Amino acid sequence: MVPTGPDQELFQRLREGDRGALARAITLVESTRPSDREMASALLSAALPFSGNSLRLGITGIPGVGKSTLINALGMLAIDKGHAVAVLATDPSSQRSGGSILGDKTRMEELSRQTKAFIRPTASSGFLGGVAQHTREVIVLCEAAGFDLILVETVGVGQSELEVDRITDLNLLLMIPGAGDELQGIKRGIMESADVIVLTKSDGQDTVAHEAARTDLRNAIAFLPERDSGSRPEVLLTDAITGKGVPELLQHVMELHARSTTTGHLSVRRGSQDVHWLKQSLRDGLMDLLMRDPRTAALLEQLEPRVRSGDLDPFRAAREVLERFRTGDAPLP
Amino acid sequence: MVPTGPDQELFQRLREGDRGALARAITLVESTRPSDREMASALLSAALPFSGNSLRLGITGIPGVGKSTLINALGMLAIDKGHAVAVLATDPSSQRSGGSILGDKTRMEELSRQTKAFIRPTASSGFLGGVAQHTREVIVLCEAAGFDLILVETVGVGQSELEVDRITDLNLLLMIPGAGDELQGIKRGIMESADVIVLTKSDGQDTVAHEAARTDLRNAIAFLPERDSGSRPEVLLTDAITGKGVPELLQHVMELHARSTTTGHLSVRRGSQDVHWLKQSLRDGLMDLLMRDPRTAALLEQLEPRVRSGDLDPFRAAREVLERFRTGDAPLP
Repeated sequence: MVPTGPDQELFQRLREGDRGALARAITLVESTRPSDREMASALLSAALPFSGNSLRLGITGIPGVGKSTLINALGMLAIDKGHAVAVLATDPSSQRSGGSILGDKTRMEELSRQTKAFIRPTASSGFLGGVAQHTREVIVLCEAAGFDLILVETVGVGQSELEVDRITDLNLLLMIPGAGDELQGIKRGIMESADVIVLTKSDGQDTVAHEAARTDLRNAIAFLPERDSGSRPEVLLTDAITGKGVPELLQHVMELHARSTTTGHLSVRRGSQDVHWLKQSLRDGLMDLLMRDPRTAALLEQLEPRVRSGDLDPFRAAREVLERFRTGDAPLP
Repeated sequence: MVPTGPDQELFQRLREGDRGALARAITLVESTRPSDREMASALLSAALPFSGNSLRLGITGIPGVGKSTLINALGMLAIDKGHAVAVLATDPSSQRSGGSILGDKTRMEELSRQTKAFIRPTASSGFLGGVAQHTREVIVLCEAAGFDLILVETVGVGQSELEVDRITDLNLLLMIPGAGDELQGIKRGIMESADVIVLTKSDGQDTVAHEAARTDLRNAIAFLPERDSGSRPEVLLTDAITGKGVPELLQHVMELHARSTTTGHLSVRRGSQDVHWLKQSLRDGLMDLLMRDPRTAALLEQLEPRVRSGDLDPFRAAREVLERFRTGDAPLP
């Protein structure tokens, strides 16, 4: 179903790669106003057939690891090679902080001046899965607008990087060698969802530390389960300022993606990602239905304090609310 | 509501601390047969008023870190001090492997011979939250049976330790100093939910490595957010074979629990844990309702392949299924 009226014009301009149109389309998708959601849904349905022809690359690392600098270097190189690059930030804090990616904009100034580049933080809609759900929809729009390298930046904050693994084709985990490493790993638990581990700021001044860190990581990786792709992450050294290792990184990522496309692993991965979002969206939607049913909402409001005070078993309370939701009857005696 | 008939007798024997009755009650709770679930639900409701008077201690660490050996030493010491100790394993693989805790039984042989000890792996019911939900119900039964120190063992496998943090009062994270540390942390992402970090097998032979590891950990911990209790995890050295550090560990844990009881933090924590399980149980139950509705189940079965093949947007598919579930109407055009 193709949108009509202004949507049609917006959609055409988006298809032509107009970044202003893309930005407005994203604003629609991120809007919570029902009327906007209508238009967004129509726009997404129209964009879907033109989506999927990109490399969706997740880039994760704690603040200060050098994500923006590497994204700038990687993006500039990709544009040189004829790609169109979109950068999306899923950092939930980007809303509070006014956008870490915007704060880091100076580090991406070079990239942001390119006509073949589009940089945008995505809104966090608050609920679990919200960040990634929005980002996933934004990716569809970016792909329909002709961007074929989508860089999804996320700070490793608990859940977010696991969500990102559900929308990306490949993931880079950025780390700085040294004292913080255990912390970087411990705070994230993302290593198992990394396809490439990038040691940043490897400007050669402390090559020994970097090589040692690379060896430690390779030893650790040997114990990790293989990725679905059947491979384990490679550890690469980069320095985004001098550009050291960046071409090798881009080439390695492109090769991984090409292999995953040839083997059919990519379409399998994207297929199961979509089924995951179907199930996740169903669970969220069902909870909305229950909360919008005045009878069940009232019962839940009445039982929750008793559960919190420990005088009602939570699973029994859930059974009572579900019974009310299913039959509309009074709760069990 | 107190169960009648055989349940009544089973419940009375359980209240007297009869371990055979406790074992049978747990089997009921873990059973998936509807009739058993009925009796289990009645049993749990009867047990709930007698539950809550224990220290629920989570013990997490990768295989080989020495969980069973430490549990044995900690349990024996607690029994000496007049406590009754229950050991529950939530390792999901325990079903496949025949029970890591049973495999490790020899390491807990001393403890398993004590009349004041009860050792049991809990069944994994497969779905997310299932392990912890069952364990949570088993904890209620153990407490009603008079056990006042509940040790909940879990291997750090992704989700499970986060679930365990939702049923325990305090958590121990066991680590072996050395090359594997990054891996131990990275594989787990549990450090933020640890109240005490225990460096095991510290038999003094490599004190230097242990002290270095302790220093590294303390440096890392300084960057972690405080626990809700307002404190950061202490790092303790133990060697369960020689018993080194075990009394200090038990005392430290008891003090943390006493403080958390006095400040009221414990009841707040348990209250929000129960509200979490209410919501989680609602989400699971709602999905069950949807799957048991033949109309929605059929539509989902018809749409899922289209989502997997990428020809239908997962969020649009979810909206269609929800619309069918809510109204029974045909899906949107």
